[in-house]
Amino acid sequence: AGMAMKSKARFFVAVHVGAGYHAQSNSKNYRRAMRRACLAAAAVLSQSSGTSMDAVVAAIKALEDDEITNAGRGSNLTQEGNVECDASIMDDSGSFGAVGATSGVSNPIEVAALLAKESTHGSSSLGLIPPIFIVGDGARQWAKEHGIETMESPEHALVTNRSKEQWLKYKNMMTSMDSSFPNFFSYLEQPESNLSREDVIQDTVGAVCVDDKGNISAGVSSGGIAMKAKGRVGLAAVYGCGCWATSNLSSSVGCSTSGAGERLIKSLLARECCHSVWESDAGPVSVCSDILLKLNQGHLASQKQDAGILLLQSFKSFVSDICGLKSIMIVFQPNRLEGVEFLAAHTAPSFGIGYFANFMERPKV
Amino acid sequence: AGMAMKSKARFFVAVHVGAGYHAQSNSKNYRRAMRRACLAAAAVLSQSSGTSMDAVVAAIKALEDDEITNAGRGSNLTQEGNVECDASIMDDSGSFGAVGATSGVSNPIEVAALLAKESTHGSSSLGLIPPIFIVGDGARQWAKEHGIETMESPEHALVTNRSKEQWLKYKNMMTSMDSSFPNFFSYLEQPESNLSREDVIQDTVGAVCVDDKGNISAGVSSGGIAMKAKGRVGLAAVYGCGCWATSNLSSSVGCSTSGAGERLIKSLLARECCHSVWESDAGPVSVCSDILLKLNQGHLASQKQDAGILLLQSFKSFVSDICGLKSIMIVFQPNRLEGVEFLAAHTAPSFGIGYFANFMERPKV
Repeated sequence: AGMAMKSKARFFVAVHVGAGYHAQSNSKNYRRAMRRACLAAAAVLSQSSGTSMDAVVAAIKALEDDEITNAGRGSNLTQEGNVECDASIMDDSGSFGAVGATSGVSNPIEVAALLAKESTHGSSSLGLIPPIFIVGDGARQWAKEHGIETMESPEHALVTNRSKEQWLKYKNMMTSMDSSFPNFFSYLEQPESNLSREDVIQDTVGAVCVDDKGNISAGVSSGGIAMKAKGRVGLAAVYGCGCWATSNLSSSVGCSTSGAGERLIKSLLARECCHSVWESDAGPVSVCSDILLKLNQGHLASQKQDAGILLLQSFKSFVSDICGLKSIMIVFQPNRLEGVEFLAAHTAPSFGIGYFANFMERPKV
Repeated sequence: AGMAMKSKARFFVAVHVGAGYHAQSNSKNYRRAMRRACLAAAAVLSQSSGTSMDAVVAAIKALEDDEITNAGRGSNLTQEGNVECDASIMDDSGSFGAVGATSGVSNPIEVAALLAKESTHGSSSLGLIPPIFIVGDGARQWAKEHGIETMESPEHALVTNRSKEQWLKYKNMMTSMDSSFPNFFSYLEQPESNLSREDVIQDTVGAVCVDDKGNISAGVSSGGIAMKAKGRVGLAAVYGCGCWATSNLSSSVGCSTSGAGERLIKSLLARECCHSVWESDAGPVSVCSDILLKLNQGHLASQKQDAGILLLQSFKSFVSDICGLKSIMIVFQPNRLEGVEFLAAHTAPSFGIGYFANFMERPKV
C-alpha cells in the first residue's frame, strides 16, 4: 500500500476469486491472494506509465500464481489429470486477446495480453494477420516464441498436491457412482458430502482496473470446471463472455465475470452487462441483477448455473448519477479519472472480491 | 434434385464457399461443390424427420469433403504445414457447438453438431456439464470417443497436393521477402503476383437451412487463413461470429458468415446481422449492407477485411413485407414454413453462393 500512497496517480483496482462455494477454512488464503493481487495492480498504476491493461495482468498473475485459486498453478484438473487454462483480456479501446485449453504456461493472462497488444500495435510478421485467439499446444508454442516463460513437460505442469488429491477423490467417486447418483455436481453440493468443507466449484478469477486517465481494462483466467474433457474451452476464453471493456468520450465500463457452465457462454455475459449499463437509465446494480436473474429463468433449480459479475464504470469529464453497492467518488478535474462506480453481483453462494484505490490505505477483501 | 421433387416437404437450403477471390478457372469446381452440398441438404430435408441442423451438417460435410474448398480436406495449411479446422453450428432454439484448431477429423462440422446435440439433449455423463466448445487434440479425442471418424496421424491428415504446393510457394515467398515487402497478403493480392490466377484467400464455407416446420439452422467450417500460427482459432469457431440462428413465434432467422481477419471476430458478425434484422424495420438487405460497410469504416484500405453474409429468414404464420436480393414466397398455410427471405451480401471481390428449394428443379449456384 505504501507504494500506492506515495504516488499521486488515481486508480481503482477490483479483483475476484470466482463465484461458487468458498470454504470458510480457506477464507484467509483467499483474502491474502486478493490483497496481493490488488497491491500488484496498484504498483503498476502508481507509475505514471502504468496502463490499466498492465495492471490487470499484474493482478491476475498474482492470482494465477497462488495455489488457492482455480487459475494457473492449482487449477482444477481435466478428466486425464492435467491443467488446461483459459484466459482473456480486453481494454476499452477494443484490444482483445485470448488463450484456450493451454497447458505448460504459468501465466495464461500474459499470453492473452501479448496477443491483444500484438494484434493492435502490429509486429505483424510479414503482413500476416496477427492472431487474437490461440489454443492448446499452439498457445504454448506462440508464448515461447514471444519470450513468455513456458514449461517443457506441459502434462504435469501447474498440478499441485491439493489439485491432484481432489482429482483422485473425484475419480473414485465417479467410478463408484451408479445410476442412483446421476449428478456428480449435485452430489458435491450436498452438505453431507464429505467434500463440503472444501471448495467445491472454484471458478474463474478476474480483475478490472482503471488508470489515472480513466481507461479501463478487464481480464479473466480460469482452470475451468473440474473433470472437464480434454480441450474443453470455457467462458474465460470466449469473446464477450469472460471480460469486456468499452468506452465513450466521458465514461468507460469494464466487466469481469465468473461462473460454471456452458450456458454462461451463450449469454455473452460480460458484454451484455457493459452494454446494458450503457443503454439503461437504471443504475448498474439493477441492470446487472436483472441480467443474473434472467440467466436462470426458465431453468430447473438443478440446472441453475452460478455466476458472478464484477463491473467498474469510470467517469472522465462529468459527474453522473451514481447508484451502486459500492460507490466511490473522487474530486472533479477535467481529462482525468473522475469517479468510479463499482459493482459486484452474484447468484452463487459466495463471490470473493477485493478492491483498492489510490486514496485507500490498504485493499479491502 | 429428383429426391427433393418427390417429397412434399418444404425447405430452403443456402450454401456459400467463402468470401475472397475465387479464380475463374476454378469456377466449375466451386459450382459442382455447391450443387452437391445443396442436394445433400435437400436429401435430408425431403424426409419428414429431417431437421434443419442435420441438413446443415450434410451440406457442410459435402463442402468439407471437396478438395476445392478451404474446409476439411484441402484446407489452408498452418505455418508448420498442417491442417487445423474451425467449425460451429447453431439452431434457432439456441443449441450451439464448436470445434477449434482441430486436426485429424475429416468433418469438423459433425463434431460441432454432436456437441450441440449432447449439450441440449443430455447424455451428460455422470452429471458433468457437457462441453459446447472443444479445441485441438481434445476435439479429436472427444470425436473418437463419440463414434465420429478420426485419423490416427493427424499431422498429415487432410493435406492435399494442391494445399501442399501452395504452402511451399508461400513458404518460399516469405523466406525471400525482405522489409520492402512488408505485407504478405497485399503482395498476394496484386494482379502481377504469379499467384493471381489461383484462389488467394479462400475462407470459410457455410450453410443455412430451413426445414418444413420453418426452423432454421446455420453452420460454418473453415481451414482458416493460410500460414496461420499453430493453435490459432478464427471466426468460424467463435460464438456469435461464424453462425447464428434465432427465432420467435412467427419467424426464424439464421446467418452464416465468411471472411478473413481477426477484426471480424470482434464484430460478432453473424449475431449482429440476425439481431439487426429482428430489430430494424428496414429490410435485411439494407441492414446487412450497413453492417458490412461499418466493418471497414475508419480503417485504411490496406486493412480492409473482406466479409460475406448469407442470411435466411423464414416466416411461419404470416406474410410480412419482403425486401431482398432474392425473395421467394411459398403458399400460405398455418404452422408450416410460409416464406423465406434469402440474402447474400459481401465486400469481397467474390462470394460464391448456391441455393435450392423444394419447388426448384435443381440448385442454383
